[in-house]
Amino acid sequence: MTSSVSADPVAEYLVRHQDRAEAWLFELLRIPSVSADPAYAAHMEAARQALMQRLRQMGLTAVQTLEGGGEPAVYAEYLHRPDKPTILIYGHYDVQPPDPLDAWRSPPFEPTVVGDHIYARGASDVKGSTMIALETVAAFLAVEGACPVNVKIFLEGEEETGSPSLKEIIRRHGERLRADAVLSADGGRASPSHPSINVGARGVTTLEFSVESARKDLHSGRYGGAVRNALHEMSMLLASLHDKNGAIVVDGFLDDVPELLPAQRADTAALPFSEHDFLEEVGGIAGGEPGYTLRERVTLRPSIDVNGMWGGYTGVGAKTIIPCRASAKLSMRLVPGQSPQRARETVIAHLRRAVTPGMRLCISDQHASSPASTLSPSHPLVIAATRSLASLSGKPVAHVRLGASVPITALFKETLGIDTLMFGYNLPDEDVHAPNEFFRRSSITDGFRGWTKILRELSRFSREDF
Amino acid sequence: MTSSVSADPVAEYLVRHQDRAEAWLFELLRIPSVSADPAYAAHMEAARQALMQRLRQMGLTAVQTLEGGGEPAVYAEYLHRPDKPTILIYGHYDVQPPDPLDAWRSPPFEPTVVGDHIYARGASDVKGSTMIALETVAAFLAVEGACPVNVKIFLEGEEETGSPSLKEIIRRHGERLRADAVLSADGGRASPSHPSINVGARGVTTLEFSVESARKDLHSGRYGGAVRNALHEMSMLLASLHDKNGAIVVDGFLDDVPELLPAQRADTAALPFSEHDFLEEVGGIAGGEPGYTLRERVTLRPSIDVNGMWGGYTGVGAKTIIPCRASAKLSMRLVPGQSPQRARETVIAHLRRAVTPGMRLCISDQHASSPASTLSPSHPLVIAATRSLASLSGKPVAHVRLGASVPITALFKETLGIDTLMFGYNLPDEDVHAPNEFFRRSSITDGFRGWTKILRELSRFSREDF
Repeated sequence: MTSSVSADPVAEYLVRHQDRAEAWLFELLRIPSVSADPAYAAHMEAARQALMQRLRQMGLTAVQTLEGGGEPAVYAEYLHRPDKPTILIYGHYDVQPPDPLDAWRSPPFEPTVVGDHIYARGASDVKGSTMIALETVAAFLAVEGACPVNVKIFLEGEEETGSPSLKEIIRRHGERLRADAVLSADGGRASPSHPSINVGARGVTTLEFSVESARKDLHSGRYGGAVRNALHEMSMLLASLHDKNGAIVVDGFLDDVPELLPAQRADTAALPFSEHDFLEEVGGIAGGEPGYTLRERVTLRPSIDVNGMWGGYTGVGAKTIIPCRASAKLSMRLVPGQSPQRARETVIAHLRRAVTPGMRLCISDQHASSPASTLSPSHPLVIAATRSLASLSGKPVAHVRLGASVPITALFKETLGIDTLMFGYNLPDEDVHAPNEFFRRSSITDGFRGWTKILRELSRFSREDF
Repeated sequence: MTSSVSADPVAEYLVRHQDRAEAWLFELLRIPSVSADPAYAAHMEAARQALMQRLRQMGLTAVQTLEGGGEPAVYAEYLHRPDKPTILIYGHYDVQPPDPLDAWRSPPFEPTVVGDHIYARGASDVKGSTMIALETVAAFLAVEGACPVNVKIFLEGEEETGSPSLKEIIRRHGERLRADAVLSADGGRASPSHPSINVGARGVTTLEFSVESARKDLHSGRYGGAVRNALHEMSMLLASLHDKNGAIVVDGFLDDVPELLPAQRADTAALPFSEHDFLEEVGGIAGGEPGYTLRERVTLRPSIDVNGMWGGYTGVGAKTIIPCRASAKLSMRLVPGQSPQRARETVIAHLRRAVTPGMRLCISDQHASSPASTLSPSHPLVIAATRSLASLSGKPVAHVRLGASVPITALFKETLGIDTLMFGYNLPDEDVHAPNEFFRRSSITDGFRGWTKILRELSRFSREDF
């Protein structure tokens, strides 16, 4: 770190007291706040209580839960800088289910430190980065008696279940949540050493469908060779979405996908990145469109993945049937320009064209959709973040995009009319949504410095700049 | 029926007392003798006791169970015709599991008569036909005090689980089971009105395999577009086994499949058969090799079917992962000339060639294999059956093959050196292995006449003819 960084008294206070902050993070991590399973409801409430207690202790006001019919959000505010912008700080306190339990090397809800790593469900996604944001605000109040900007803390409890009542929470409490911009603790860094800003995220839409080839499962001896098999049909349909390299071949799906700009390609290439290591780390096999680097493919190009498929007999041993029904779930990752609805429709149209005549194709109405989000390079959030990271690292800051989707960004734009910058400190290898999720202690240090700096940088803008 | 049939006093006795025979069949059907699930063990024993009681009551001797380490078989004998051939009558007392229970319109183990149909698990497969065989022997003893041939009754308890200990039972009790031929109550008729003989059955082999594309499930946002997906790979592999018509395109799989003989095609065509009705009845969609009729495809040509496939997230809602593993189960139906092992190997070789480099392909060692079986037109079993059905129906008798596999036929040939004729009276539409399985009361009447006649016809051969 450069000496200009070391000089920030708030950042130094945070780094000095990092142990205390980690201890509090561990308390949060011990609470199994799994939003997907109603059996964890009491723990969700415990997580809210722990957060509200800390927010009050920090000196924030209006500490409360905001109800929307599902898991409430936690809210708190600091509004003593009428001349400064108001930043909504977003995080979430819910976590993914810990399954499969037997794949964890340490208990998922007992944070376990191994070297630089803190292993626990939710450590990386996203209690770690949420803690960084909150403690930074607390440190400003503790050290300087004031925060450089107005702050509204908004911690969601349903991020891992697709935010089913977030829209309703915002609808009910829109006035209270009004702000100039959102700084999100969710969404991570591309690299620990090379500074980058997420200026957007891919969108997502999902599609569940099934094919039915008969009214019942048939005996493979009596019917084998005579009839279509729903599992063959499903295989053919799924195989038809991509060519043999893994490039999407769904008519119309790529129509609204813009050509990559030279600046985007340069920004993406600026990040040090080893395709080999990226794949090696998870034992993955490269696939996808020719003509793009791997990082371009996962951030600047759309993708279609089968998330699950099933049909027929899946138990032990053999059951020689011709199954009458097969099902699959797809997720599509989208880039700016693509409408989730239209993307979904092109896939449905592809399936309808590809399906064998007579086969019943059933498309589920259920889906989770959110468009890609994007931030202009001249947005105060981008300028503030770029300045912060450049000054902290002494390196140029790349503007990159996230491969994952952050539906809240689209939702805040739609409901509150404001933009979101993802400023989380997790890293891509931290096994989010998987066993042995971890967060780095060094990321906490980096995060304290980054959040201190960005709040100072944002205070240089006026409300009109947003 | 012609008057020559009515004249057989044993057949007439059976038909006159059909109600009594059905009552006893209902007793058997009420016993849920499910061999696949150990929870039904007591019912398996109850089924054996009920059968042994009836066999003793009929006047057979040496009534006993034959042990082989699994579910014992039930045995009884009548050996008072030293000058006549000895026929091993095969049946099985175990049934498929009744699942899915909620798809049954009447309780699976409470036989329910609706018109000509008797609904119950095991009614068609194969307690109904087993009862016909036993009661025919009983009627000979009751009416004439003697059976025209020597009879050994052998009722298996593991047919529905792939006969895991049948070989051991035969090994231990081979001397007792020695016979000139097997007449099996299993394996059904192609048509109620047009007489046919099953002169063989397709063989079968199974294959379970999985593909692994990474060491763990990956986030579809972070990795989507960058890596191969095990479910895409599995889809591609399964889709690659057939062309778009459904014809097998596995190199070498068809090498040992003989061209159809004109006589075989003529026999197959002789049976009245509506492809439209066959498909319509189950809501199926025609598929398979061009150049063959549907009945040729299911009896004289091999087939490959996916019996089950699974991978990734299959619960409610969306989980946007790139699954690391996908699995599938295949069954292959084989014709004479094909070795199960070689057929299986050609499919494995196909998968190894087709799989994307880097993808881990795991082939399970487990499989159930049995070659196709075949009976010569000059075999006494074929001659006796042809004469019986021709005289009963006044129609020519077609020699056809079964699409399903009857592994016991191959096993009896291998272990006892004798041939098997399938002489069951079930019909193809009776939902075996599915909910609402049924058997026809009219088939019981036909079966009584057929079994009476064939035992008389077999008595015209000497032991040396076999």
